[in-house]
Amino acid sequence: MSDIADAAKRLLLGRPLRSESSKRSLLPKRVALPVFASDALSSMAYAPDEILLMLALAGIAATAFSPWVGLVVVVVLLVVVASYRQIVRAYPSGGGDYEVATTNLGPTAGIGVASALMLDYVLTVAVSLSAASQYLAVLVPSARGHEPLVAAALVAALTVVNLRGVRESAWVFVVVIYCFMAALGVLAVVGAVRFWSGDMPQAPSADLELVPAAGYEQGLLGIAGAFLVARAFASGAVALTGVESITSDVPAFRRPKRRNAATTLALLGAISAAMLMTILFLAQATGVKFVEDPATQLTRDGVPVGDDYEQHPVLAQLAETVFGGLSVVAAITIGVTALVLLLAANTAFHGFPVLGSLLAKDGYLPRQLHTRGDRMAFSNGIVTLAIAAGVLVLVFNAEVTTLIQLYIVGVFVSFTLSQLGMLRHWTRELRKEPSRAVRARMKWSRALNGLGFGLTSAVLVIVLVTKFTHGAWITVVAMAVLFVLMRAIRKHYDRVRSELALDDLSRARALPSRVHAVVLVSRVHKPTMRALAYARASRPSSLEAVTVGVDADEIADLRQRWEALDLPVPLRVLDSPYREITRPVLHYVRSLRSESPRDLVVVYIPEYVVGRWWEHLLHNQSALRLKGRLLFTPGVVVASVPWQLSSSAGYTGLESDEVEGRRPL
Amino acid sequence: MSDIADAAKRLLLGRPLRSESSKRSLLPKRVALPVFASDALSSMAYAPDEILLMLALAGIAATAFSPWVGLVVVVVLLVVVASYRQIVRAYPSGGGDYEVATTNLGPTAGIGVASALMLDYVLTVAVSLSAASQYLAVLVPSARGHEPLVAAALVAALTVVNLRGVRESAWVFVVVIYCFMAALGVLAVVGAVRFWSGDMPQAPSADLELVPAAGYEQGLLGIAGAFLVARAFASGAVALTGVESITSDVPAFRRPKRRNAATTLALLGAISAAMLMTILFLAQATGVKFVEDPATQLTRDGVPVGDDYEQHPVLAQLAETVFGGLSVVAAITIGVTALVLLLAANTAFHGFPVLGSLLAKDGYLPRQLHTRGDRMAFSNGIVTLAIAAGVLVLVFNAEVTTLIQLYIVGVFVSFTLSQLGMLRHWTRELRKEPSRAVRARMKWSRALNGLGFGLTSAVLVIVLVTKFTHGAWITVVAMAVLFVLMRAIRKHYDRVRSELALDDLSRARALPSRVHAVVLVSRVHKPTMRALAYARASRPSSLEAVTVGVDADEIADLRQRWEALDLPVPLRVLDSPYREITRPVLHYVRSLRSESPRDLVVVYIPEYVVGRWWEHLLHNQSALRLKGRLLFTPGVVVASVPWQLSSSAGYTGLESDEVEGRRPL
Repeated sequence: MSDIADAAKRLLLGRPLRSESSKRSLLPKRVALPVFASDALSSMAYAPDEILLMLALAGIAATAFSPWVGLVVVVVLLVVVASYRQIVRAYPSGGGDYEVATTNLGPTAGIGVASALMLDYVLTVAVSLSAASQYLAVLVPSARGHEPLVAAALVAALTVVNLRGVRESAWVFVVVIYCFMAALGVLAVVGAVRFWSGDMPQAPSADLELVPAAGYEQGLLGIAGAFLVARAFASGAVALTGVESITSDVPAFRRPKRRNAATTLALLGAISAAMLMTILFLAQATGVKFVEDPATQLTRDGVPVGDDYEQHPVLAQLAETVFGGLSVVAAITIGVTALVLLLAANTAFHGFPVLGSLLAKDGYLPRQLHTRGDRMAFSNGIVTLAIAAGVLVLVFNAEVTTLIQLYIVGVFVSFTLSQLGMLRHWTRELRKEPSRAVRARMKWSRALNGLGFGLTSAVLVIVLVTKFTHGAWITVVAMAVLFVLMRAIRKHYDRVRSELALDDLSRARALPSRVHAVVLVSRVHKPTMRALAYARASRPSSLEAVTVGVDADEIADLRQRWEALDLPVPLRVLDSPYREITRPVLHYVRSLRSESPRDLVVVYIPEYVVGRWWEHLLHNQSALRLKGRLLFTPGVVVASVPWQLSSSAGYTGLESDEVEGRRPL
Repeated sequence: MSDIADAAKRLLLGRPLRSESSKRSLLPKRVALPVFASDALSSMAYAPDEILLMLALAGIAATAFSPWVGLVVVVVLLVVVASYRQIVRAYPSGGGDYEVATTNLGPTAGIGVASALMLDYVLTVAVSLSAASQYLAVLVPSARGHEPLVAAALVAALTVVNLRGVRESAWVFVVVIYCFMAALGVLAVVGAVRFWSGDMPQAPSADLELVPAAGYEQGLLGIAGAFLVARAFASGAVALTGVESITSDVPAFRRPKRRNAATTLALLGAISAAMLMTILFLAQATGVKFVEDPATQLTRDGVPVGDDYEQHPVLAQLAETVFGGLSVVAAITIGVTALVLLLAANTAFHGFPVLGSLLAKDGYLPRQLHTRGDRMAFSNGIVTLAIAAGVLVLVFNAEVTTLIQLYIVGVFVSFTLSQLGMLRHWTRELRKEPSRAVRARMKWSRALNGLGFGLTSAVLVIVLVTKFTHGAWITVVAMAVLFVLMRAIRKHYDRVRSELALDDLSRARALPSRVHAVVLVSRVHKPTMRALAYARASRPSSLEAVTVGVDADEIADLRQRWEALDLPVPLRVLDSPYREITRPVLHYVRSLRSESPRDLVVVYIPEYVVGRWWEHLLHNQSALRLKGRLLFTPGVVVASVPWQLSSSAGYTGLESDEVEGRRPL
């Protein structure tokens, strides 16, 4: 790495961290709750919007259903939370859904869950930052219309922060999440007081009329209406995302880890449920309108509002309405919501690389993902996540509604599979357990996980049926691709491992009977002499200098100089009618090998080492090409004899921030 | 190279050619004339246009001057041809202007000429193919408006043709060039007959009025007028381009080479002169209008013709007028003109790589340009030319007039410098020559070259003064850059050569006193065992296995297996607090070197060889990175011990079209 690149890396990422520093401090519940809650709570910033938006397709009367749809979502949410409390207790090692599925349903289900989870992480980043860019646009008018760029910039910023490592950030979570909870609490109280005192103001969008979409002129009547309610529910189920993430974080809790984690999870579920119902109720009370395409779906006095209308997210509209205009309290509420979304995205930057590393360790992903960077972060995983999320944000124009269609499938695939895994888990445990009291508790747990499985699989079916053509197919295809890819990678590693395993020890210890040394020569100069000297120093059984005859004059000149020097090494000229260098050498080395297959051939290649990148262009690359080709021949060792040109003197092969007393020449 | 890429290469380029096939057959004059004439004759397709276009700035009366401007161009042309006949006689080896300048004016002038010539070749391609695309657009209406794309496609097509090699193409030149001459001959005769019989038709553009540009309302009066005439002359001088190229082709003529080449050159000059005057005369007689920007400069009955007007090149307009509409004869004339332009561009594809190879051989350009591809063509030079010309065509929108401003400077720089070189040549020869008869002939030659130098340097000054701000500065800058670059490259090669030269023979023969072998180990498997066996087979003075301790568990496991195998090689674990692989190994190798600087350290690196490109991604690249870094350390040999994974079995390191009886595993 060059000086400048290295300096820039240090500036952005900080100095390298020692391996011992990876032991992290354990968190008490009051810190753990905010640290692990951002993913789950952040969905309050977009889940209510999706419910309202879907129902709005059937006109104003339909949106009155939103609290009921929300209630069903809350029921599912609470059941899923109860199910996950079982997982936290049974699998406290931090392997999460992947571990549950692998252990109980086998590796195939495991990588199924893993591919769903990987997509979830990518979409958590994409959805959260797209939503964050929309909340920011409410506060910063100049950001309006540039949401995709803002979201992409946020992806880039989080990438840098996470490549630095995120250990110092717990207090940020504490401040932001408690502020968010406080803001929504105040919103609920003020809203309730104003509602009962009959002082409830109407939202700025309350006086707009909704234009029902084609086919929904009759509201929610008929099959189309039922299907729309199902779609609204499926969209609202995005409120459940993030509940599962705490299962990976159990090891970070203070003792008793399992109980603390389970309690935190229960708290989290209760808070989420309360928030969702608050928002939906207030939206109903203040007459908030939220639609997918304001320009065509909203009219004012019968006239479409047109492209100039700015539709704020539901929570932003509520804050503006309840607290009055863009007051300081409203601005704080909106700003804190954006920060919560940022922290949720950051959670994925933590979880994705850990999952990638786990999968890499199990051989399902390239080994590089298991390598920690010099700041102890899994750098390759972070960069992979950032690229995938950045592409999604830009391709889908940071449109939250579209991205959620992709998001929700993956989430419910992992929910369903891990609940199924837990069913198996309890059934197996029950078989081993003699104590009646314990068995009773286990049966209760199994019943909970069974209910969870039933509900989440039902939701998964609804999601697949209602969302497939709206983008969910992309996730299904991507999951299938990841699944096949991970199986192929594992197969490759397995094959290589068995190929490389030591089976025949005596054969592995056998030494080649003789060593033939071949020194490649093009001209008579210092690098050639050095290669010859080194080859001679290794005292091979036979030693030859070999050159390729392309230009007759050059060969004659070489022969003459060779003889004049009276070198103790014979020079062999290989014929090359097609002016190639590589092929004649390969053929010659092969012929040596086939004459005596048990011998070793060592090919010495003199190589220039240059210091500046452009100097590479000026020196013939044939040595490099030849080296690559020779490696395909068994029984051959390719020995590079470097000659360091003076321009390489400043380069040590070490990075520049290290104090180096000596130079290599 | 993979199978598919190789098959595609063979399909496009044909099978490899043997070295002996480079001896080309010698050409009689009647074949040599067309083969080498395309470059010079092709300028008839655009040179008259440029004269008319410049004069048209001063209105209709000014265009009546065009035959007079043409006459001055013809005078310069004939003098330059006479001068080049001297060069052909004195330097028949094919080195051309570069050789003349280098021999007589020294290497600095040589690379000055070389940089001018390289740009000339690039601009020959760009100008010729841009003009060709305009002639094609006359014939193929659907190509209109897409001239830049058509020209770029022609560049691509010529690139493929030339990467195949151009030996079989002489008959193409014979047919096309003689057709072109015949077409212009018929045009001249029919035109003359119709003119004298008073039956001369008027061109379709004859009834348009010319709007003089601002400042030229008075026609050619005053300094502005004189300057415009000078600009018209400087543009018309583009008719001379290509005259010089025959000097590089003397070796291809039949004996007596010099006389045949000189005669051909004289014929070429006469034909060019006749063609130029014919075109300018007929353009005058038929009232052809040709302007830079038809939309603003041409009016019909006082109304601008607007953007819909299609302006055909002058020669196309003449063919349409004299032969009547788009008759078959007119279409043939226009088509053949386009073909001549194609052949002219093709000439550059032949000349540029040869010049590049010559410069590479002299150390002014990277050595790769001196390497012939397997079809005996200088592939790298062809690709370089194609990219440069393609960029120019696309950047300048295939506008011939703009490109010519860039073209003309380079041409006259090489003209002027080579004439100056010839002056020196004759002066030096005269000093040595005793015979009076020979001296008289030499003095005559010197006078001719002196006249040539005087005229071409005068034209160069006019060109620089009148064209500098119109684009010539780009060429001047590009020439300066090329000049500096070539000097820097030569300096680099010189420095490397002197650095590598054998000075101290006894030191070069000295052998290292001891050999320390270090085998890098990560796990205990077959590749490690093979590396150990090979290292032991070379019987080093000391032998050690070295590993880097990143993960404590893995190291403990490795130590245990190592001891269990009871290997006769000690295992050393290097500490790596920052989880790096490269740096601890480099430090350790350095420490070995600094303990005993006269010893040799051989580092054995076990390496996987995989057959599929994606498998590279799955195996840790740390071995590769380490190899690159180790080469910066003097006294170290890096020995790659390959382990061929079974997926590499189909790959031999040889190309696939070769019949291989054995596989490497």
